[in-house]
Amino acid sequence: MTELSLSLPVGPADIDAAAQVLAPFAVRTPLLSSPVLDEWAGTRVFLKPEMLQRTGSFKFRGAFNRMSSIPLSSRGGGVVAFSSGNHAQGVAAAARILNMTATIVMPSDAPLTKRERTRAYGAEVVLYDRGREDREAIARAIAGKRGATLVRPYDDPLVIAGQGTVGREIADDMAALALTPDIVVAPASGGGLVAGVATAIKARYPQAVLMSAEPEDFDDHARSLRSGKRQPHHGQGRTICDALMALVPGEITFAINSRLLTQGLIASDVEVAAAVGFAFRELKLVVEPGGAVGLAALLAGRIDSRGKNIVIVLSGGNVDADLHARLIG
Amino acid sequence: MTELSLSLPVGPADIDAAAQVLAPFAVRTPLLSSPVLDEWAGTRVFLKPEMLQRTGSFKFRGAFNRMSSIPLSSRGGGVVAFSSGNHAQGVAAAARILNMTATIVMPSDAPLTKRERTRAYGAEVVLYDRGREDREAIARAIAGKRGATLVRPYDDPLVIAGQGTVGREIADDMAALALTPDIVVAPASGGGLVAGVATAIKARYPQAVLMSAEPEDFDDHARSLRSGKRQPHHGQGRTICDALMALVPGEITFAINSRLLTQGLIASDVEVAAAVGFAFRELKLVVEPGGAVGLAALLAGRIDSRGKNIVIVLSGGNVDADLHARLIG
Repeated sequence: MTELSLSLPVGPADIDAAAQVLAPFAVRTPLLSSPVLDEWAGTRVFLKPEMLQRTGSFKFRGAFNRMSSIPLSSRGGGVVAFSSGNHAQGVAAAARILNMTATIVMPSDAPLTKRERTRAYGAEVVLYDRGREDREAIARAIAGKRGATLVRPYDDPLVIAGQGTVGREIADDMAALALTPDIVVAPASGGGLVAGVATAIKARYPQAVLMSAEPEDFDDHARSLRSGKRQPHHGQGRTICDALMALVPGEITFAINSRLLTQGLIASDVEVAAAVGFAFRELKLVVEPGGAVGLAALLAGRIDSRGKNIVIVLSGGNVDADLHARLIG
Repeated sequence: MTELSLSLPVGPADIDAAAQVLAPFAVRTPLLSSPVLDEWAGTRVFLKPEMLQRTGSFKFRGAFNRMSSIPLSSRGGGVVAFSSGNHAQGVAAAARILNMTATIVMPSDAPLTKRERTRAYGAEVVLYDRGREDREAIARAIAGKRGATLVRPYDDPLVIAGQGTVGREIADDMAALALTPDIVVAPASGGGLVAGVATAIKARYPQAVLMSAEPEDFDDHARSLRSGKRQPHHGQGRTICDALMALVPGEITFAINSRLLTQGLIASDVEVAAAVGFAFRELKLVVEPGGAVGLAALLAGRIDSRGKNIVIVLSGGNVDADLHARLIG
C-alpha cells in the first residue's frame, strides 16, 4: 500500500493533515447502525451520516481544507466556486469562518433550499443556465476580475484530502468496534468523496472493496471504471439526484479511483426515492436524493453483501421540503 | 448522592444492570451537536437522538429491560401493554426478541405509522376509544384472561432503569468530551424517561440541573413540580404531541422526579412544529412532535442556557409522513 500511495496524487498523510485542519470546525460525524437495516440486508450495515456535517453535506470538509491553504496575502480577493449546491454551501460556510468573501456560480434549477442556504452563509450567488452556459468559464471570469481564488468542487488534491477525512473517521470507528469494513460505498459525481474515502480506507484496510454509486443515467464512473478510461455518462435525461450530475469523472479523482475502486454501482430514481423513504421511516434521517444513491443500490439488491460488513456513506441531506414530502409519501 | 439514591425507587446500580441487559439488543445512540444550533443558542448544545433507537424511540430500552426479568415459566402467557404507540412498538419488538406474544391496547386515534409498525413487529393491536374507555381496565382484563404479564409504560422501576440508560450514555459521552452537562432536558408524559435520565445524570454530575418538557396544555409535570404534589394537567384540549398526553405524573416516577428535577418546561404546538421543522432543515433528523418538545422549549427561548452545556433528549421519530410534511412545510 505504501508504494501505491506514493504514486497517487493524494496519500493518507494528506488526509491526516486535513483532519488536523478540520478538527476545530467540522462535525465529527458518528457511524450509525440500524437493526431494521441489518435484518433487511442479512448482514451488518454501517452508515456514515454526512447530512449531520456542517452545511448538511460532506462538502464542507474539502472546501475548508482547500481554503485554509490560501495564503493570507491572497485572502482579500475572496473565493469563487461553481456548484449545484452542496459545494456552494461548503465554500460559503468556510469563507465565513475564514473571513473571506465568496461568489458561487449555481445552476438556476438548483434546489431552492441550496440557493437560500448558500446566501444565508453570506455568499453572493450568480445563477447560470445549465443547458446553455459554461459554469467554469463564468467562474474563471469572476476569478480574473476580482482576484478571487477558484475553489474546485473535486479535482483538487486538498479538496480530495478533506473529503478523505470521512473515510478516516469510518476506519477509526470500525477499528473501535473491532470490525473490518469489507465493502465501502460512496456516491460519486466528480468523484472527490469516493477518491478520498478510498484513499483513507485502503491505507488501513487494503483488502476492503470500494465502490462508487451513481444515478443510472449519470453512470460515468461505472462506465469509466469498466473501460479503465474516463468516459462521459450515457444518459441525456434528468435525475432527482441534483448533486450527482457531473458529465465525466475528474482527472485527478479518476487517477485515484481507477486504482482503488472495484466497481461503479447505479440506482434508478425510483430506487433512490425508495431509499429516501426508507431513511425517513426506518432510519429517521433526512437524506437528499443524491446522498441516498448508495443506500438505494443496497436496498435494490445490487451489492452482494451477505456475511460482510458494509459501510454506506449518506453524503448529504439538503432537500427541499416539498420534494422530500413527495418522495416519502 | 449515595444517600439520596438509596432512598429512591431506582438507583444508578439498577441502570448499570439495565445497560448490561440491553447491550446486545439496543442501539448505542451517539451524542450529536450542530454548529447551527450552537450558534443559535449562543452555547454548546448536545442532542441525544433516540429516534435512532430500535423501534424509533427510547421506549425499547425500558420495555426490554422489564420483559427480560419475566421468569421463563411465565413467558408462555405473553405480555400485554397499553400505549399511544411508542411503548407499543418497544414492547412488540422486545417480545419478538424474547419469543413472547404481545397484545397492545392502543387508542383508535394513534398515528397510523405507530399502529402499523406495532403490528409489523408481530403484536396483536386492540384499539379503544380514548374519550370513553379505560385502557388500563382493558389491558388488565386481557392479562387476566390470557395469563399475560402487564408491561407498564412508566410506573415500574425496571422500565425507569431501562430508560435511565439514555442518561448513562449521555454521562459517558460528555465525560469522553471532558465536558460537564450543566442542564439536561427530556420530554415527559408519565415521566419514566426523565426519571431514569435524572437518576443517571445526578449520580455522576450532582450539580446538573434536570428539567422535564411537556406540551403547554399537558403540563402535569410542570404543575406537580411547582406544587410538590402530583397534579393533573390543566388542559382539556388536544396536542400534536400524541406521545405526551398522560393526565398525571406516575407515582414511582414522581417520587424520583420530585427529588431530582428543578423545573418543568412547556412548549406550545406551534413551537413544537417549529422545532420539528428546524430538525428537518438544520439537523437532518426526523423528530416526532412529542420528541421535539425539549428542543422546542430551547428554541422558544425558555431555557437560560448562555455559557452552559445543555443536553436535549430527542425522544422519538415515529411521525406519519403527511403530518411531518405539514409541520415542515
